[in-house]
Amino acid sequence: MTGAPSGRATQGTQDRHGAQEDVGGVVTLARALLRCPSVTPDDGCAIDVLATVLRDMGFAVTSLPFGEGDAYTPNLFARLGTGHPHVCFAGHTDVVPVGDAAWRSDPFGAQIHDGLLYGRGACDMKGGIAAFVAAIRCYLARHGGTIPGSVSLLITGDEEGPATNGTVRVLEWMAANGQIPDFCLVGEPTNPQQMGEVIKIGRRGSLNATITVTGVQGHVAYPHRADNPVHRLLALLHELTVAPLDTGSEWFESSSLQVTSVDVGNTATNVIPATACARFNIRFNDLHTGADLSGWIRTVCARHAPGADVQIRISGESFLTQPTAGVDALRDAVTAVTGQMPRLDTGGGTSDARFISQYCPVAEFGLVGASMHKVDEHVPVADLTQLARIYDRFVERLMA
Amino acid sequence: MTGAPSGRATQGTQDRHGAQEDVGGVVTLARALLRCPSVTPDDGCAIDVLATVLRDMGFAVTSLPFGEGDAYTPNLFARLGTGHPHVCFAGHTDVVPVGDAAWRSDPFGAQIHDGLLYGRGACDMKGGIAAFVAAIRCYLARHGGTIPGSVSLLITGDEEGPATNGTVRVLEWMAANGQIPDFCLVGEPTNPQQMGEVIKIGRRGSLNATITVTGVQGHVAYPHRADNPVHRLLALLHELTVAPLDTGSEWFESSSLQVTSVDVGNTATNVIPATACARFNIRFNDLHTGADLSGWIRTVCARHAPGADVQIRISGESFLTQPTAGVDALRDAVTAVTGQMPRLDTGGGTSDARFISQYCPVAEFGLVGASMHKVDEHVPVADLTQLARIYDRFVERLMA
Repeated sequence: MTGAPSGRATQGTQDRHGAQEDVGGVVTLARALLRCPSVTPDDGCAIDVLATVLRDMGFAVTSLPFGEGDAYTPNLFARLGTGHPHVCFAGHTDVVPVGDAAWRSDPFGAQIHDGLLYGRGACDMKGGIAAFVAAIRCYLARHGGTIPGSVSLLITGDEEGPATNGTVRVLEWMAANGQIPDFCLVGEPTNPQQMGEVIKIGRRGSLNATITVTGVQGHVAYPHRADNPVHRLLALLHELTVAPLDTGSEWFESSSLQVTSVDVGNTATNVIPATACARFNIRFNDLHTGADLSGWIRTVCARHAPGADVQIRISGESFLTQPTAGVDALRDAVTAVTGQMPRLDTGGGTSDARFISQYCPVAEFGLVGASMHKVDEHVPVADLTQLARIYDRFVERLMA
Repeated sequence: MTGAPSGRATQGTQDRHGAQEDVGGVVTLARALLRCPSVTPDDGCAIDVLATVLRDMGFAVTSLPFGEGDAYTPNLFARLGTGHPHVCFAGHTDVVPVGDAAWRSDPFGAQIHDGLLYGRGACDMKGGIAAFVAAIRCYLARHGGTIPGSVSLLITGDEEGPATNGTVRVLEWMAANGQIPDFCLVGEPTNPQQMGEVIKIGRRGSLNATITVTGVQGHVAYPHRADNPVHRLLALLHELTVAPLDTGSEWFESSSLQVTSVDVGNTATNVIPATACARFNIRFNDLHTGADLSGWIRTVCARHAPGADVQIRISGESFLTQPTAGVDALRDAVTAVTGQMPRLDTGGGTSDARFISQYCPVAEFGLVGASMHKVDEHVPVADLTQLARIYDRFVERLMA
């Protein structure tokens, strides 16, 4: 859409590039999904819309809701064919809230302005799901409606939330039912600025810790009669933060410990408080495990504050998919369509790929993420069509 | 009153020791003062009660209220005689609140049970003020109603509060009117467990600091795009606390820095916060000044967190009255009455002596402080009479 006159509202995709832009129906499906208000934990019928499309294409669709009450999570597994190679596309229909700021148009209106499709989830990641489906349609159209191996979709309605009854539970079901794929592609937005920049082949792990130190309250003029928990907490946080955890590894940037909060809440200037609490997060690469880091944290805490309450939650281990057939096929497809050689990267936050990596090789490639989670989230229509073409070539390569 | 049968309520001071216990009317005046509900900033007529007694004794009484509205503070300066040596007794009529817990009897009832006089301010320090007056009455009774030098009282109604319009302002007035004494005795409770233990000849200084570091908020997965203010705050607090400030000096225990609060208030585990705040107090001896410590704090902050907001308030410099004539007289008087050799000490919190020390030599000696600021604050009647006798001998020594 580059070069379209500025300020002209394009209500459809019929611009000077013509109807060919809606490759495999990618724009139509993306708009249908964007119109479902599926803010976690609501589904807004997004998974139903997708299930109907997949059934029409011949997929065997299995609805896999898990959890009850507030924890109820709709999920879907759909597979076309039963042979190998089995390629799975994974993603989520839920989106983060609209936020407080005003949008230029309805966040669930799926309007197109100047070649940009607006809506909450446009890039993260309803656009990616639409490209999954469009790519398979294109492939089937060229191959008489059949596929030699099989292709599947793993879709959850809870990736932006607790992620407890989503991808994790679907994978358990897939393992129990012989549905684990040979390779999985997660359609999260991986490109910082433009299509073709980054394929993610791993992610750092993530650990959250809460340390509460209890001392003995007292008057600041008589510190020998008190035991200042703030000083114990400062000493242990200093030891935890004074040196970098590492300087990175072959595929990973360095691990990072960030103290996110320290809280005492003592307003009296002459009183040594009774308790002090700190929270921190560690993003760690493949030189560490959650267990090793937990042991280190507990040792440091025991040295400076014996008896401190140490709560640790490992929300994901680091993982790495060494560049192999699946990654090569994806890289070639990206280069063929965009003309760019994508960087293989392991940076940034976490995604459901951390769960999938425990079952099969997984890589991530999707849209440009610059507007994700922000007001006026959008995606260029041209990027949607590019992504459908990339996924199409990726399937073509793996099935060849 | 030691040895009185347990459980017997003594409504007056007429026990087996006889009426001699109300030496110079110390018990009567203490009870009159305790019945005034003078919780800072209220006066409860306590200063009026005292002024009437002093006028009857021949003192020239000057009422010195300072401040207006909520800051209004009643104060009193009263002097008997105009010559030298001029000995001043200093103290306060205001008391801390009664607190939430139930008292065994009315906190402003001034009741005596088993030889103990109960009431808010009994030891801190209406009992001390009553002993000032009783001692002077005893002295005058022995000397035909005259005194060769002069004796004065500096009394404020705001020692337990902000102390802005109290002793500081009265001293300014005294300096402007030629009323600065040769020696001042503050009647704060200095004895930890029993009469005669401790004379205070100095106090450590006190400094409060509030450091607020502003960084750049961001996602924990991308620390290089953020600037974590918690880490900068931790680094500067570590440098401030890692080594002791000193190991004490001839008359002082070691200085002490106590971090009293660190507050961020960030509940999101994946967000690097924008600001972090710490508060600390330093009690410092005569090896430091408030200005030197302030400079050190600002230098450390600038090194780790340039641009941090550094608020420092020096509530008092350290001071020391080298053992000289006044201190010797006080020590001798204490030993003569109690049979104990008091320790010369500079420990503990601050008092108005920090202000007086800027004008003349000052020492502190009073009652046993064990129950001060607590529920059921009380003083043994026997201690009141001892204190009146000690102050009497002290005046006798200095006037001799």
